[in-house]
Amino acid sequence: MLALTHPTPNQSLLLEHPDPVPGPGEILVRVHAAGLNRADLVQKAGKYPAPPGWPADIPGLEYAGEVMALGAGAERWAIGDRVMGLVGGGAHAERVVVHEDEAMAVPPGLAWTDAAAIPEAFLTAWDAMVLRGRVGGGERVLFHAVGSGVGTAAVQVAELLDVTLIGTSRTPEKLARCAAMGMAHGVLTTEGDWPLQVGGAVDVIIDTLGAKFLTQNLNLLAPRGRLVVLGTLTGGMADTLDMGLILRRRLEIIGTAMRSRELAERRELVARFSVEVLPHFISGALRPIVDRVVRLADFEEAHAAMAENETFGKVVLEVRGEG
Amino acid sequence: MLALTHPTPNQSLLLEHPDPVPGPGEILVRVHAAGLNRADLVQKAGKYPAPPGWPADIPGLEYAGEVMALGAGAERWAIGDRVMGLVGGGAHAERVVVHEDEAMAVPPGLAWTDAAAIPEAFLTAWDAMVLRGRVGGGERVLFHAVGSGVGTAAVQVAELLDVTLIGTSRTPEKLARCAAMGMAHGVLTTEGDWPLQVGGAVDVIIDTLGAKFLTQNLNLLAPRGRLVVLGTLTGGMADTLDMGLILRRRLEIIGTAMRSRELAERRELVARFSVEVLPHFISGALRPIVDRVVRLADFEEAHAAMAENETFGKVVLEVRGEG
Repeated sequence: MLALTHPTPNQSLLLEHPDPVPGPGEILVRVHAAGLNRADLVQKAGKYPAPPGWPADIPGLEYAGEVMALGAGAERWAIGDRVMGLVGGGAHAERVVVHEDEAMAVPPGLAWTDAAAIPEAFLTAWDAMVLRGRVGGGERVLFHAVGSGVGTAAVQVAELLDVTLIGTSRTPEKLARCAAMGMAHGVLTTEGDWPLQVGGAVDVIIDTLGAKFLTQNLNLLAPRGRLVVLGTLTGGMADTLDMGLILRRRLEIIGTAMRSRELAERRELVARFSVEVLPHFISGALRPIVDRVVRLADFEEAHAAMAENETFGKVVLEVRGEG
Repeated sequence: MLALTHPTPNQSLLLEHPDPVPGPGEILVRVHAAGLNRADLVQKAGKYPAPPGWPADIPGLEYAGEVMALGAGAERWAIGDRVMGLVGGGAHAERVVVHEDEAMAVPPGLAWTDAAAIPEAFLTAWDAMVLRGRVGGGERVLFHAVGSGVGTAAVQVAELLDVTLIGTSRTPEKLARCAAMGMAHGVLTTEGDWPLQVGGAVDVIIDTLGAKFLTQNLNLLAPRGRLVVLGTLTGGMADTLDMGLILRRRLEIIGTAMRSRELAERRELVARFSVEVLPHFISGALRPIVDRVVRLADFEEAHAAMAENETFGKVVLEVRGEG
């Protein structure tokens, strides 16, 4: 099969690899489309190796495709079933192997390139808000970098949950597009007084910005507020932490990541998501936001678009193998 | 009634106050004994005012006594019932008023001065470990300042939960006494390499030390570990926070405090504690650890003992009113 690989940091090549072989309980999936994530660029730079048990040499954290072979004992899916899901690596390829319990059914009628835009964005947004942040109806959520794949998913999930979502961005156009999707209020982090523009305390902050925003974020939290840390784009080492504030307001800082999770945890997450969230793609309440679809062979174009922060929603790689 | 008060910071007087009057749903309690807490000393220093709705001028966060009058609609207790519980202030007095749902039944056979040593220590230890830290059977917990009232409660609660508790102290004798009570392992924080002596990663840390220990604490946490912050004895402002570590290991920092909680939350906590924990005082699996009992009139002696860090377990003030 053809698969993307990074032989040295910041170098990407599409090369022939041996097809992966499904082990017990696993399925082999013919990949039709695969989402691109910022984490893929970090891995490309040599800074985010795959966790144990996943392909070390092929990037790609999510896929949509059809089941083409079953490992011993795998019985949840049939050959030809349309599936999608998260992987710890290896999705930017014509084939990927996953445990059968980690795969989800593609909602009927969805194109491959739309399905591939669901797993990372919606699982992350839902997990961060509901399972990590324990957001409740009527609460206020601040979501940093709301124009991202996970941000545009969060705007929709917030509507389902009856949650007021305030999003931040460095780009006014992204805020306008999120507002059109139902976001309550948008804030430009390029402005010095952005915390004031949030308009009062929030119950949950979903943060990808990290160190430079930590103090402002904590100050924005209401009593019992939760700061869910998904990323540290402005740096990982903060130069102060007001533990007195954490104590007085009973705040929580919660680090979370999808990629490093073990099978048991992924399986449980996928099971809940399939029941509680997936049906809303069929009703139309949720829909993946795809900025652009790029052929896998044109991966450089996709990488560049994401690196330049010019995308809104997901960048999806289309994989058209020979079969 | 006689009650302790702090007319100016660091000055304490036992003065006559008007008796408090129970409002709707409240009960008037004749206090027989009241625990002393480090927070009382902070309040005495003028740095920890009572939350809204509690006596601003009388310290004391826990009591044991008998019901002597019922407010309108209060029906949970009868005159003469033996009760104990937490308050936001006002317990270092001959009378205190509490909502009937915040009071708990004193376990049969327990002396007043033992009962008064239960609420803050055991509610805090159980809440911090079980409800905030979500500690599970087989996990490892590090408990700082284990010789305190809440620490000696935690050692016992850990046994109930089948949790390995490692305690720290600056005093070898306190570690020895906790070991005799069932603590798995003790560590002296006066030694520079104390983190090494913990003997590997822990799942939960219950911390009262704060800023100076933050980095060492976070480094000791296993993946998905939780740092529950109960206090900041070494300072509230930490000079660094490794958010990258929080992200990679999916750590949580959880601030918690009893005193600032609203009635609804106190009521829920007391209801759960009464079912899940109180029966173990009857069976003998749990017992309050009382360092010393001091007459309320001798409060200066009690304050001094706690300030000098020479106590093991609780200091209890005995209140012998005229009725």
